[in-house]
Amino acid sequence: MLERIRTPCIITIFGGTGDLTHRKLIPALYNMSVEELLPDELMIVGVGRRPLSTQEYRDSLLESVTKHSRHPIRTDIWERFKERIHYFRMNLSESEGFSSLKTWLESLDEKAGTQGNRLFYLSVAPSLFEPIVLHLYRHGMADNLGAWQRVIIEKPFGRDLRSAAFLNHVIESVFPPQNIFRIDHYLGKEMLRSLMVIRFGNAVFERIWNSRYIENIQITAAETVGVENRAGYYESSGALRDMLQSHLLQLLALVAMEPPISLDIKAIRDEKVKFLKSLLKMDDGLFKNNIIRGQYGEGSIDGNTIRGYRQEKGIDPASNTETFIALRILAGNFRWGGMPFYLRTGKRMPEKTTYVVLEFKSMPEILYFKEYKGMQPNLLEIRIHPSEGISFSFNAKKPGSGNEISTVRMDYCQNCSYENNSPESYERLLADALRNDQTLFTSWEEIEASWNFVDSIARSWEKETVSFPNYTPGTWGPTASNQLLERYGHHWWNL
Amino acid sequence: MLERIRTPCIITIFGGTGDLTHRKLIPALYNMSVEELLPDELMIVGVGRRPLSTQEYRDSLLESVTKHSRHPIRTDIWERFKERIHYFRMNLSESEGFSSLKTWLESLDEKAGTQGNRLFYLSVAPSLFEPIVLHLYRHGMADNLGAWQRVIIEKPFGRDLRSAAFLNHVIESVFPPQNIFRIDHYLGKEMLRSLMVIRFGNAVFERIWNSRYIENIQITAAETVGVENRAGYYESSGALRDMLQSHLLQLLALVAMEPPISLDIKAIRDEKVKFLKSLLKMDDGLFKNNIIRGQYGEGSIDGNTIRGYRQEKGIDPASNTETFIALRILAGNFRWGGMPFYLRTGKRMPEKTTYVVLEFKSMPEILYFKEYKGMQPNLLEIRIHPSEGISFSFNAKKPGSGNEISTVRMDYCQNCSYENNSPESYERLLADALRNDQTLFTSWEEIEASWNFVDSIARSWEKETVSFPNYTPGTWGPTASNQLLERYGHHWWNL
Repeated sequence: MLERIRTPCIITIFGGTGDLTHRKLIPALYNMSVEELLPDELMIVGVGRRPLSTQEYRDSLLESVTKHSRHPIRTDIWERFKERIHYFRMNLSESEGFSSLKTWLESLDEKAGTQGNRLFYLSVAPSLFEPIVLHLYRHGMADNLGAWQRVIIEKPFGRDLRSAAFLNHVIESVFPPQNIFRIDHYLGKEMLRSLMVIRFGNAVFERIWNSRYIENIQITAAETVGVENRAGYYESSGALRDMLQSHLLQLLALVAMEPPISLDIKAIRDEKVKFLKSLLKMDDGLFKNNIIRGQYGEGSIDGNTIRGYRQEKGIDPASNTETFIALRILAGNFRWGGMPFYLRTGKRMPEKTTYVVLEFKSMPEILYFKEYKGMQPNLLEIRIHPSEGISFSFNAKKPGSGNEISTVRMDYCQNCSYENNSPESYERLLADALRNDQTLFTSWEEIEASWNFVDSIARSWEKETVSFPNYTPGTWGPTASNQLLERYGHHWWNL
Repeated sequence: MLERIRTPCIITIFGGTGDLTHRKLIPALYNMSVEELLPDELMIVGVGRRPLSTQEYRDSLLESVTKHSRHPIRTDIWERFKERIHYFRMNLSESEGFSSLKTWLESLDEKAGTQGNRLFYLSVAPSLFEPIVLHLYRHGMADNLGAWQRVIIEKPFGRDLRSAAFLNHVIESVFPPQNIFRIDHYLGKEMLRSLMVIRFGNAVFERIWNSRYIENIQITAAETVGVENRAGYYESSGALRDMLQSHLLQLLALVAMEPPISLDIKAIRDEKVKFLKSLLKMDDGLFKNNIIRGQYGEGSIDGNTIRGYRQEKGIDPASNTETFIALRILAGNFRWGGMPFYLRTGKRMPEKTTYVVLEFKSMPEILYFKEYKGMQPNLLEIRIHPSEGISFSFNAKKPGSGNEISTVRMDYCQNCSYENNSPESYERLLADALRNDQTLFTSWEEIEASWNFVDSIARSWEKETVSFPNYTPGTWGPTASNQLLERYGHHWWNL
């Protein structure tokens, strides 16, 4: 369905032996190759410190693609695809490495006809973003001499507004803004991309999309896994920076922004920024008790013992890093004034799921609704991941009864009918970067507004002490999360 | 789910050997017996002219129940149920018959403990309604001496306002209004009964249920059969009187009436009457060409030759009776002012189906909808029969594409999940009559308003000539029906 990419290019992946490269990037490129989206003149260079031959590198990637690709592996396609892949060994902290990388990429240009175009993918520890970008600058690898150089920066983009601003300043002094692709892979998810169409392509939805009709909006992003092998990074970020700052606020912005005046990237970003800026800061006294932090303790799921966060490998046994966060937040604008958004995200939840629920206001007090027993508010559910779809719950008469109500559900399941055809986020995002389409990447202004908001949460936390662990693996987080909503007469909708 | 009926009673069916009794009434009573809704003291007397013994009558009914009951026949239940059934032979036009019927029913009271309560079901030719009611009066069978007598009148209730008013006058001079049950079996259908709950029990629906949000409302009631064995009746009624006057206008009234102030029967009827009275009369010059008549000719469906209407048994070979009607009508009230309702009904259509479609207004001209290709208006479909359910069609992004749109559908299917559990209309309506609940029966004021409107159509027809036949069996009627909507920029939604 997508058009073939036409520009020649070398994709250089810093962090070429890393987890993301194996599980996501190379499988994504392989799938794009299956779907004939890649031009012949496209090369992939994995850069890493380990001593591997290109042959060994390809073999290790074959194993990963076999495991993680959504299209089953086909020998004929792999044989052609693997010819695109090369391994380049270097130490990312040494200047000489970049110098020889430059020469080597130029010789690859000769052979492969890639014309000097470069997509640098920074799939490395955040502390390396700045030095790598500076090396690229110093070695003339971002010079734009008749060819283009783009850079994709993985999350996290900073750990607060100050560090993010500094990082951005460095990158923007090397690459022009239109060549910087700040990735948030959530934005590549099909249903998230469909949100704009659902909101603005349907007269009925757009007309009820405001606080006059909606009682509250809930966003849940739950994982079942624990910290896995990301201890070092996670200890210093926690759920607030890892999930809320990027994924949840981006999702929220798409759900809540004003309609843009066009589908132009700038018009959309402007609306997202405007919305993010409208969020009331959380260190205001008004919001006391509106943020709930959690950390999972020991427990068991399905009979398996689960270690507490503090017992995980690489984690401080006295760590106060949050693995769960729930908030009630408000936007100070005319569409949403006074209506709460409830956001929650956490590890070791009962299921892996991301969804949005719009709970509609109930009717004014009308006497005969008391005769209708069992009424529930109308709900519009937008399921993002792993199930993709949209449902509307409403009240109908129970067949065969008098006026007894049952709440029933109209459902549209997107990945039931298009099974396995939904491209993975990274496929879409890599294709967009190769096509120079920034729509699904985040602008600096969005990141700035997100950090500004997130910093206000972090500041409010500085005044409090926490008592962790406070929730059991396999539950929806600390009970305080439920109490938060109950205080306002609401409750979480667990789909 | 329904409560057991507690009042003793004899149900006397005039027309006891007729089609309706065999196909609907006795199967309905049998099903009510399976579900233990009937009190022990409930007897059923079939009245007819044919010479049958009670034993022969029961045997013939067993055959019909076996064929038409939604619950499979169970010998033990039938054996007990059949004891309730008796046959009484008489000539309905002779006075003596009523006199001995009276005595016989009284003797049955003694044996069965039915306490003199009577439900008279008039399942006979319309010409017999009036004489039967008068006989009941003359023989003191409607005297209300410490017991109750109710009468159920089958359709059609008159053939125009004048004849209906006369009939009503006669009946109301014999029975008090609260004991007169004018049946329209459409009103017993589950989804129709659910309409009130769907409309008024869901904040979202009620708020968009008006001409600001809705572009047009369509009601389709299609049959695949031809005139069958109802030639005599149908020749003098046609689609206008047979379908539009009762079923379609009742359905329309439930879809379009204002919210009643309570669930009280009077409050609901008042709103229905108010709406029916608000319909603009069709003999006004404004509505020229807004009514399309049709009559099916010869043709073939699935390889079978289908006779034209004029060739059917008992039909005048030059008949100008319409077997199809489509209209564009307007209501002169504030909720619906200017918004068209499109109604159509016909025989020999492609499928047997009754449904309502609400087509929502499209968005104002917004530039980027042009970039979204393939947008359709939002549709809310309410399926009444035979499929029961509700769907909402909306636009979403086609997965894997750029901004290509596909129209997708959220669906709730009621009789998929409750299969075979939906009671038939007649079960519900008989139970209501036994419980003295008039909610699902039509009041005289509603019938009066319907005929008043229908007469305006009949009057407009007097000025025109028609050229029949004008549609082929297995199609959606004459092409003029499509052209009617096209003139206003609309089209029929065939589900």
